[in-house]
Amino acid sequence: MENFTFKNPTKIIFGRGTETSIGTEIKGYADKVLFCYGGGSIKKSGLYEKVVKALKENNIEFVELSGIKPNPRLSLVREGIKLCRENNIKFILAVGGGSVVDTGKAISVGVPYAKDVWNFYIGKRIVKEALPTAVILTIPATGSESSNSSVITNEDGWLKKGLSSEYIRPLFSIMNPELTFTLPAYQTACGAADIMAHVMERYFTNVKYVDFTDRLCEATLKTIINNVKIVLEEPENYDARAEIMWAGTIAHNDLLSTGRIGDWASHKIEHELSAIYDIAHGAGLAIIIPAWMKYVYKHDINRFVQFAVRVWNVELSFNSYEEIALEGIRRLTEFFKEIGLPTTLKEGNIGYDRFEEMADKCTTSDTRAVGQFVKIKKQDVLNILELAK
Amino acid sequence: MENFTFKNPTKIIFGRGTETSIGTEIKGYADKVLFCYGGGSIKKSGLYEKVVKALKENNIEFVELSGIKPNPRLSLVREGIKLCRENNIKFILAVGGGSVVDTGKAISVGVPYAKDVWNFYIGKRIVKEALPTAVILTIPATGSESSNSSVITNEDGWLKKGLSSEYIRPLFSIMNPELTFTLPAYQTACGAADIMAHVMERYFTNVKYVDFTDRLCEATLKTIINNVKIVLEEPENYDARAEIMWAGTIAHNDLLSTGRIGDWASHKIEHELSAIYDIAHGAGLAIIIPAWMKYVYKHDINRFVQFAVRVWNVELSFNSYEEIALEGIRRLTEFFKEIGLPTTLKEGNIGYDRFEEMADKCTTSDTRAVGQFVKIKKQDVLNILELAK
Repeated sequence: MENFTFKNPTKIIFGRGTETSIGTEIKGYADKVLFCYGGGSIKKSGLYEKVVKALKENNIEFVELSGIKPNPRLSLVREGIKLCRENNIKFILAVGGGSVVDTGKAISVGVPYAKDVWNFYIGKRIVKEALPTAVILTIPATGSESSNSSVITNEDGWLKKGLSSEYIRPLFSIMNPELTFTLPAYQTACGAADIMAHVMERYFTNVKYVDFTDRLCEATLKTIINNVKIVLEEPENYDARAEIMWAGTIAHNDLLSTGRIGDWASHKIEHELSAIYDIAHGAGLAIIIPAWMKYVYKHDINRFVQFAVRVWNVELSFNSYEEIALEGIRRLTEFFKEIGLPTTLKEGNIGYDRFEEMADKCTTSDTRAVGQFVKIKKQDVLNILELAK
Repeated sequence: MENFTFKNPTKIIFGRGTETSIGTEIKGYADKVLFCYGGGSIKKSGLYEKVVKALKENNIEFVELSGIKPNPRLSLVREGIKLCRENNIKFILAVGGGSVVDTGKAISVGVPYAKDVWNFYIGKRIVKEALPTAVILTIPATGSESSNSSVITNEDGWLKKGLSSEYIRPLFSIMNPELTFTLPAYQTACGAADIMAHVMERYFTNVKYVDFTDRLCEATLKTIINNVKIVLEEPENYDARAEIMWAGTIAHNDLLSTGRIGDWASHKIEHELSAIYDIAHGAGLAIIIPAWMKYVYKHDINRFVQFAVRVWNVELSFNSYEEIALEGIRRLTEFFKEIGLPTTLKEGNIGYDRFEEMADKCTTSDTRAVGQFVKIKKQDVLNILELAK
């Protein structure tokens, strides 16, 4: 196990009806907020009205920033920063899924910083302060509701970049599984894939003796696997929605990384996919991860055997480790298919003509590589994309 | 799943050599601390010297409170409060196991409160402020390093009482598994039993649909079961010590309670045992829990079957649920024996003559009962003690 520091002070307020406490929770911190949300879904569901009522009852003014889309854009972040400055707003309220939360976090670091907020995302500048951000979560997927990260797409060059900083963990997040009842099946499945990816990126590590976090990872994966099928059949099954929502937070609140070094190559390759093709992140991961696994499993076949046996209930046989490892990957792929996700580029309607560009953009770091479990260089990215065809 | 609020802001600094950062971590918060510790073990191990050096290097003055014993006493808490007031100390540093940490927490709430600190423990007064407490942990057991609780024994009547408050979660806890290498086998085993008890008290719940936290609980139990045997064979096995230490924190940082209602009857019955007989808390639990299980398992046999199958690898057979449930309890008992703990009152050298007194003290609450999974009244406590003979 590696040395680590772990601290996650985000307050989670979880359960039925909890969104109505948003006013009382904000009170004491701010009397004016930037209220960020996406398209019309929170208006259709009635959540918008509930939030407005709760804010008004607590005399909290708000300015709205709406229209945030999946793979959230830098232009809207800049607009939000401007709105905060013009209106002297010092508190961000993000109501929606990961894109809304990530936009809110980006605004929260941009407001107190005089120059271009993109500097934080390209590593030119380190975050030293941020406005507090509160969340009402409507999509379990990114884990952004208690994570220290935010991913934003710069339309200028379609660059999708992530920022990590302890300053951007939300102050609190309200999570009511009922708010996820109306999530379409495809978005539910994409969210599940994203959650599972957060766990698998951590699971595949070269660090030895990480028994406890291995088991926590496996517990989280099994929870998603068992419950996503239930909610696809019964979208209003509160308990199954609740399991997914809470597991989604824990998958990415850093507990599962403690003492480990995660991989993250699949995420980085997928970011290139979704930056160019605007495919849902979870769907992109369902395409990339199985290909990545097929490409790297020989690096540590025992770990893939453990994954197959403990997560996918593949029967252990000491004569055929390679088959067991491959069977685990096959069951993961089948699972993604079963819940309605693409598992090849073709199924994702993605052409094969921009592999070079994606491989290039993906490996622009100093090391010219991504991934910690296995170092993936440009040619490896090309090979993985080839396997994902 | 029940609605819940979860927040645990304690910073964990985990790994080899981390105790040397104590000075730099405190700096910025305080320039004078109350340095609390137990007997001579931190002097023998060299930890005392390291702490003193780190404090001095950072110009942090300290006043010492030593001699804290297992089942920590109220008299020493009062002495600590007095020392803080006399020396204008506003920061507590607890170096040791749960008894030292719990004493530190008690002092932290006592200093800013003009009247008797015991009022907090008997529920006469609610905590509204506390000094910050930092921890260097040397015994994985109580989880006090990031929990919101403190248990103190009042020598006047030998009352052992627990206090819970968000104000007493440590500011940060330094956890170096190397510091646990010298823990004697018996203390290691007692710690393991305490950790497992924290999980089992949460595991046995009447709340339905708690799949995720069930799995997290099972992961934590299996980690302890597998690793404690290793450290009893190889006390200086860093990795196994690390697994136990980190699992011990997660067992009691409230994550495993999210959405559930825990039981806690066994803890309350055990508190009466250790208050009177001064037996180690973990040993007391190893005696009480199997007896409690035998007494209550029929209340929810399916849950005990899940416990047997998932935690103890009992083979599932649909014809014999009762046998499977009992086999799980038997394996738990065998495990406690194997690691050198008493599993009966007799083995713990505890007489049978004060059952009435313990049963009375245990059930003095308004409801005259303890436990949430099954309500345990005075006669039930007597029956459980009878089963524990």
